[in-house]
Amino acid sequence: MTTQELPNWLKQRAFLTPDRTALTNGDVEYTFGELWEKAISIGEQLHTIVKHSSHPFLGLMIKNKVESVFLVHAIQQLGFTTVLLNNKLSENELSFQIQDMGLGTVIYDDEFAGKLSFLGGEVEGVSFSQLFGTDPTRFEVKDHFQLDQACSVMYTSGTTGAPKGVLQSYGNHWWSAIGSSLNLGITENDTWLCSVPLFHISGYSILMRSVVYGMNVRLFETFDVEGINRELMSGNVTIMSVVSNMLSRLMKDMGDETYHPRFRCMLLGGGPAPLPLLQKCKENGVPVFQTYGMTETASQIVTLSPEYSMSKLGSAGKPLFPSELKIKNEEGTAKANQEGEILVKGPNVTTGYYRREEANAKSFESGWFHTGDIGYMDEEGFLFVLDRRSDLIISGGENVYPAEIESVLLSCDGVEDAGVAGITSDEWGQVPCAFIVKKDHLTKEDIITHCEKNLASYKRPKKIVFVDELPRNASNKLLRRVLREQWEKGMVADED
Amino acid sequence: MTTQELPNWLKQRAFLTPDRTALTNGDVEYTFGELWEKAISIGEQLHTIVKHSSHPFLGLMIKNKVESVFLVHAIQQLGFTTVLLNNKLSENELSFQIQDMGLGTVIYDDEFAGKLSFLGGEVEGVSFSQLFGTDPTRFEVKDHFQLDQACSVMYTSGTTGAPKGVLQSYGNHWWSAIGSSLNLGITENDTWLCSVPLFHISGYSILMRSVVYGMNVRLFETFDVEGINRELMSGNVTIMSVVSNMLSRLMKDMGDETYHPRFRCMLLGGGPAPLPLLQKCKENGVPVFQTYGMTETASQIVTLSPEYSMSKLGSAGKPLFPSELKIKNEEGTAKANQEGEILVKGPNVTTGYYRREEANAKSFESGWFHTGDIGYMDEEGFLFVLDRRSDLIISGGENVYPAEIESVLLSCDGVEDAGVAGITSDEWGQVPCAFIVKKDHLTKEDIITHCEKNLASYKRPKKIVFVDELPRNASNKLLRRVLREQWEKGMVADED
Repeated sequence: MTTQELPNWLKQRAFLTPDRTALTNGDVEYTFGELWEKAISIGEQLHTIVKHSSHPFLGLMIKNKVESVFLVHAIQQLGFTTVLLNNKLSENELSFQIQDMGLGTVIYDDEFAGKLSFLGGEVEGVSFSQLFGTDPTRFEVKDHFQLDQACSVMYTSGTTGAPKGVLQSYGNHWWSAIGSSLNLGITENDTWLCSVPLFHISGYSILMRSVVYGMNVRLFETFDVEGINRELMSGNVTIMSVVSNMLSRLMKDMGDETYHPRFRCMLLGGGPAPLPLLQKCKENGVPVFQTYGMTETASQIVTLSPEYSMSKLGSAGKPLFPSELKIKNEEGTAKANQEGEILVKGPNVTTGYYRREEANAKSFESGWFHTGDIGYMDEEGFLFVLDRRSDLIISGGENVYPAEIESVLLSCDGVEDAGVAGITSDEWGQVPCAFIVKKDHLTKEDIITHCEKNLASYKRPKKIVFVDELPRNASNKLLRRVLREQWEKGMVADED
Repeated sequence: MTTQELPNWLKQRAFLTPDRTALTNGDVEYTFGELWEKAISIGEQLHTIVKHSSHPFLGLMIKNKVESVFLVHAIQQLGFTTVLLNNKLSENELSFQIQDMGLGTVIYDDEFAGKLSFLGGEVEGVSFSQLFGTDPTRFEVKDHFQLDQACSVMYTSGTTGAPKGVLQSYGNHWWSAIGSSLNLGITENDTWLCSVPLFHISGYSILMRSVVYGMNVRLFETFDVEGINRELMSGNVTIMSVVSNMLSRLMKDMGDETYHPRFRCMLLGGGPAPLPLLQKCKENGVPVFQTYGMTETASQIVTLSPEYSMSKLGSAGKPLFPSELKIKNEEGTAKANQEGEILVKGPNVTTGYYRREEANAKSFESGWFHTGDIGYMDEEGFLFVLDRRSDLIISGGENVYPAEIESVLLSCDGVEDAGVAGITSDEWGQVPCAFIVKKDHLTKEDIITHCEKNLASYKRPKKIVFVDELPRNASNKLLRRVLREQWEKGMVADED
């Protein structure tokens, strides 16, 4: 039987295991029974506001708070599709997304009242405090979720091309959760620490897994390094999602301590990770699972299985059970160790971008999604992600991958953080430029010497720029495009 | 996206985790990589035999041996639907199923050559040794399994009505495995002990879960009580499927020992379990998970969650996450604690019986399957299965449930085993008759006294018959219908 519908997830979960812990934040705790009640009672308030709306989409701008989790579920219960607005965007960017999705209402955390002060007219803005002060009206709770219905929309991070709304169906989230469980396992005592943004797929997918698995989410409002390290050492938490920058900060703060043996998975996504960091984690006994995924795949699609976490260090692993992967180059499907574009397929992959016929035609081909990223598979089928395509530097006809150079730079004593971008060169087309956050007493000569030891000539940075910090997006991904733009606009300068 | 297909399960599993243990039997061990090779090499031999066949179905008569597991997978790889023939059936019963399914070929373990000597003419019989001596021919391995394709057919046990072939799709097996994992969890070190028959859904579903989860199956050829108890005490095994008769024998042999802490789930199916047995397990610290399922639901559909295993003793639990349950009586959907027919719904439920229009029309109603079994749900929604409908005894207008009476009888000192069936009575229509396997020095007076203490008058057995053993089917389910028939034919007699 091909299944079109499943029981309403939160309702079913609250029926099956009402007393199991669903959500904690500091000392605050909610069971699945309580989460269900919150979703319904807030849903009834929201219903008063949107019951005459003809818009299928509802905007939501949130921080990582328990109220945001209630809202996510309330909107699902009302049957609307949630458009998750990135709270770091500028007014222009937000306006674009709101118009692009044709939103009629945006619900927002009171903290964003200023940022959204431009709302009004055709687009109603409703703050949390307005919403929570509204009289409730009853609505009919659906017994089932339709798997092909759009559950959420997220705009791609903007590190590549023009922003596009990614439609994520209930089915996409379901299969993502199931695919992850078949790789990482599920135990009754799992707790997933969420300090990644709830408005990104990394955070939102934790909420979906929580309901499907019956698993506790330990929510952090900010990336509180010390507090999170204490959690990981306490044994309260078994799994955490990070990107490499977060992991690096955790490792620095960790010192000589070790994490609790119950902590079983540090899920590391958000782009290729520097090898020195992975090696440090290995030495400290931190169970890192590298993973590869994106908004379009409703989070992970390729993850390293536990038995290979050490022997295949640096690899993102193999596809999750329901998914597939191939590498394509000019000659067709690439052979082992040949690099090319990463293509993915599976029931967690989006059906497409909202109203982007051209991009959809370009990105999807017989069920395969063209990620635009570059990588290769080794003889055993393990994926190694080399870079995000848009960041690829082509220098004198040679492909240069910023992540590889960054990895080398980070292994240099005195380098705190490093980003590499391609800058225009009359001679070579592009050359790599290194942007370095340094500790005391590091000179450019030190870096050059280190690179000469570790990199082929064409890969060595032709410029080195010291900066105070590197541009990163809300999920801490390095924005190499912004580095390049800052350079081109003269906002960062070579002090030589 | 509504998913129609998934990667070929065994191929994908062998690709993802080739070195993980898939199957062990005694000292013999196969990894998923080796299981895949076996499935393909035996598939190539089988291909030589069936390549010109126009039959979509292939008969299979097996015992619990590793070769049988290879065959199960080889047939899936070839794209045929396996008709699993119960190896305890008589020639007449087998002939009926073979004709009913229109089989052209039956593959069988050499041990059944005698039983299948009637084959020939239009139905070719091929023994394992013939098959394994056949020259291979290559076939094209499919990259995907279609979820709506029939994977297997099993005839209902025959304890109710006329035998019917239940069509089990790949989707049914997939969702069954996923539903189970969301309740019981999955860990990397799980091993599922299989001593239930592979030709029944209880055993076949273990093989399917194994491939989907990447989990070891510890196969037992027979129900070797001592050997199995040793396994459960050793910590090699984490989960085992049993019916109450098997569990009872394990408990008797167990003595003062305890099972290893790694043994985390004794999955108890096959009908309502006697409370004294459940209590004994509780005292001995055996983690019993009662479950309710049938061939039509591709194994479990209702299972008690771990946190309720003690507080809801005797209940089969709540539906698995993707499934639903309701109780129906004359007035419609029953209220809490009202008994009625058990109806189930979910993606693991069969789409129907093969060529049984009438039975299908009767059994399926807007996606709900009428199980014919009787039960109720308590205020919290926990299912209590009272009886299989066909066994219901109606005595003087009162419903009498054999399982309830058996449970009382088994709590009587000196009763080794007990079965209850309705026998014809001029006065009451039917009256319950007890069939008792006794230890020494038990008298009918003892039993009557015990029943008077524990049962309402109309429920007390009106006849007590001592027998040497009770009739059970291959999965050890008590056959109450056979008890009744034996009584009616005078094959067992009241010695009074």
